Amino acid sequence: MGRNLVIQTDFGISDGAVSAMYGVALSVDSTLRIFDLTHDIPQYNIWEASYRLYQTLPYWPEETVFISVVDPGVGTSRRSVVVKTAHNQYVVTPDNGTLTHIKKDIGIKEARIIDETVNRLPQSGESYTFHGRDIYAYTGARLASNTISFDQVGPAIDVKDTVELTKPEAYIEEDVIYGNIDILDVRFGNLWTNISRELFQKTRIAHGDAFEVTILNNRQQVYKNRMTYGHSFADSRLGEPLLYVNSLDNLGVAINQGSFAKTYHIETGANWRIMIRKAPKINE
Amino acid sequence: MGRNLVIQTDFGISDGAVSAMYGVALSVDSTLRIFDLTHDIPQYNIWEASYRLYQTLPYWPEETVFISVVDPGVGTSRRSVVVKTAHNQYVVTPDNGTLTHIKKDIGIKEARIIDETVNRLPQSGESYTFHGRDIYAYTGARLASNTISFDQVGPAIDVKDTVELTKPEAYIEEDVIYGNIDILDVRFGNLWTNISRELFQKTRIAHGDAFEVTILNNRQQVYKNRMTYGHSFADSRLGEPLLYVNSLDNLGVAINQGSFAKTYHIETGANWRIMIRKAPKINE
Amino acid sequence: MGRNLVIQTDFGISDGAVSAMYGVALSVDSTLRIFDLTHDIPQYNIWEASYRLYQTLPYWPEETVFISVVDPGVGTSRRSVVVKTAHNQYVVTPDNGTLTHIKKDIGIKEARIIDETVNRLPQSGESYTFHGRDIYAYTGARLASNTISFDQVGPAIDVKDTVELTKPEAYIEEDVIYGNIDILDVRFGNLWTNISRELFQKTRIAHGDAFEVTILNNRQQVYKNRMTYGHSFADSRLGEPLLYVNSLDNLGVAINQGSFAKTYHIETGANWRIMIRKAPKINE
Repeated sequence: MGRNLVIQTDFGISDGAVSAMYGVALSVDSTLRIFDLTHDIPQYNIWEASYRLYQTLPYWPEETVFISVVDPGVGTSRRSVVVKTAHNQYVVTPDNGTLTHIKKDIGIKEARIIDETVNRLPQSGESYTFHGRDIYAYTGARLASNTISFDQVGPAIDVKDTVELTKPEAYIEEDVIYGNIDILDVRFGNLWTNISRELFQKTRIAHGDAFEVTILNNRQQVYKNRMTYGHSFADSRLGEPLLYVNSLDNLGVAINQGSFAKTYHIETGANWRIMIRKAPKINE
Repeated sequence: MGRNLVIQTDFGISDGAVSAMYGVALSVDSTLRIFDLTHDIPQYNIWEASYRLYQTLPYWPEETVFISVVDPGVGTSRRSVVVKTAHNQYVVTPDNGTLTHIKKDIGIKEARIIDETVNRLPQSGESYTFHGRDIYAYTGARLASNTISFDQVGPAIDVKDTVELTKPEAYIEEDVIYGNIDILDVRFGNLWTNISRELFQKTRIAHGDAFEVTILNNRQQVYKNRMTYGHSFADSRLGEPLLYVNSLDNLGVAINQGSFAKTYHIETGANWRIMIRKAPKINE
Repeated sequence: MGRNLVIQTDFGISDGAVSAMYGVALSVDSTLRIFDLTHDIPQYNIWEASYRLYQTLPYWPEETVFISVVDPGVGTSRRSVVVKTAHNQYVVTPDNGTLTHIKKDIGIKEARIIDETVNRLPQSGESYTFHGRDIYAYTGARLASNTISFDQVGPAIDVKDTVELTKPEAYIEEDVIYGNIDILDVRFGNLWTNISRELFQKTRIAHGDAFEVTILNNRQQVYKNRMTYGHSFADSRLGEPLLYVNSLDNLGVAINQGSFAKTYHIETGANWRIMIRKAPKINE
């Protein structure tokens, strides 16, 4: 049996694009097992594509083959690559920064450029706009089904040469923790920061402690309030904010049964910074 | 071969949450067959989670394992359970009312509390906010793949002790049928009531009969009009309302190719009541 | 092993309808492999259902069984059919125009009416509103699993008698190409016309040539501008319009990283016409 194949795109599922990719993969091997990561990456948002891979890969078995197609540069000279991670999973993707988190936080062992003279859907030569179907689904399926080995993807390149987005790191200065709003827990509106539990705990905190949390968009303050550090949403009252460790072991900011992001119009990225400092306990 | 696994959540499919659950399940057994019920349950809406299970379970094979994660109380002391239904299907869920319809309308034979000391994703001990991944996907996959038997889920509890939401029953009084708007046929905006075809037919009705339909939100009248009882939408003209028996053998209210719910701002739940009485035939 | 089964509907995936169809199919054969085309066809939009089949079928293996349920006439006397295409794939659908593109552009070899006395979910006789579950999923699964042969679907009919929607053809007159906006590349807002690359090339064009593009809604001009013919979006600057050959080998109109449809409020269908003529080169 082949490896499982998992697909992520920014194509949505309202038209036939994703289904055409499935069809191509099943035409390579009609017994392939195919799954979705998400097809709702905001269009052209390479950062979020990179983050969602980092969020999910650790929970999938070794040898799984992932395809990620968020590809604003389709038709340019950007390269198409397949990498093998430190945990022996594969990612098939345009080399445009989609590998940023995987490279830093999981590790990449080997990288190869897709040789499109062999790894391209036959008779698709006149199509320049749908590499998701013609190159990535086709190559991912050939690799997942063992039709080709990893070596047969194409020539090896230096892992260091794969494209990376700027990825700010969190740090502590004079007992204040500085970080970024990396991404949203979309459906629930929780903010996920780049502050790891490990870093947070260097400030000798305990559940129930109170913190002053400031959020800035560039230099402009968007939010400032006091909140408690809890295990889970249930540790605050309905509608109250709290700090918690999210499911990726990073610090999150939430409102119990509310959307923090919507309530305070918070977005994500390098401009969206968060400062956390311990607050004196108030008698309640 | 193991049993099929079917997952329902209120997580949406725009981020990596559902895919992480799939990955955990496939890490238990990489040949598992996994399907979706829906991931679009409105957040925290336990009633709708319960209803969607009732709507779909009868159409799936015996031995199917369902996971339902609508879990506003994650991190509280609410229990996690697995039940075996009267038709030998399994449901893995927080015990928060999600089993209401299954218990009343299908029947539950046995219930067990999940023993999290064994049925929890290894190394997930510091995560308090994603039991969908760490407990429900993991336990559901172990059960579906026969890695554990139902007995090995954890200690048995009395079925009577599982949590139930209030579920109003429809009734007839002086030839008027009183019921509730239970839920919507979301995409098409049809109202689905809790009035069964069997109860409705006690008023000696026939297709083509006219009825006066009143809808109230608490005591306030929101809609009152005359409509015909038809087999299907096509039995009314475009844009006209009609009464019909829906695909679950309950009474529905629709507008032919229109959304009744949107047109009249109708919502669902115990406050949304419907009264139906036979109308005298008008010469047309 | 049976054939793969692929389902398309206008039901959305927010309630239990699609999952009930899956359940019925897996109750026929619990090892069936089922996939989605899309469930986001706009309600009652038979044209788009027809187009999405045409868009994806060529990429799926021979013998695949497709189910398409966009069925505004459920409960009327419209027929239910299964057809076998020129490439030996099957489509199970109401006979309401859903086969328009398949018939013209791929070809249909044989058509059969579904005999509902045998090919209908047992005990579903009182349900008149969900043929997707009771007839199409059930029959499609029986065919895909080889429970019935194509002959056992029901009596053969003349392929010519299957219902077709009006489908305008593109043409050239005095070096102007006249066509229609057939459909959108939904997520990205690109316009897909019915002008084939082959027809377009009859005007002796080359990549980099400039064209004057006019779009009309009925006789009213909605858009008129000059744009370049490129290989891919990257051949125009960010925010600039371009003509290109899309992934189905037809002419498309796009804005690089923008939504043409939203920006200019363009819709699709027989009323939405496009005229393209070569523009004199301007010194840049």
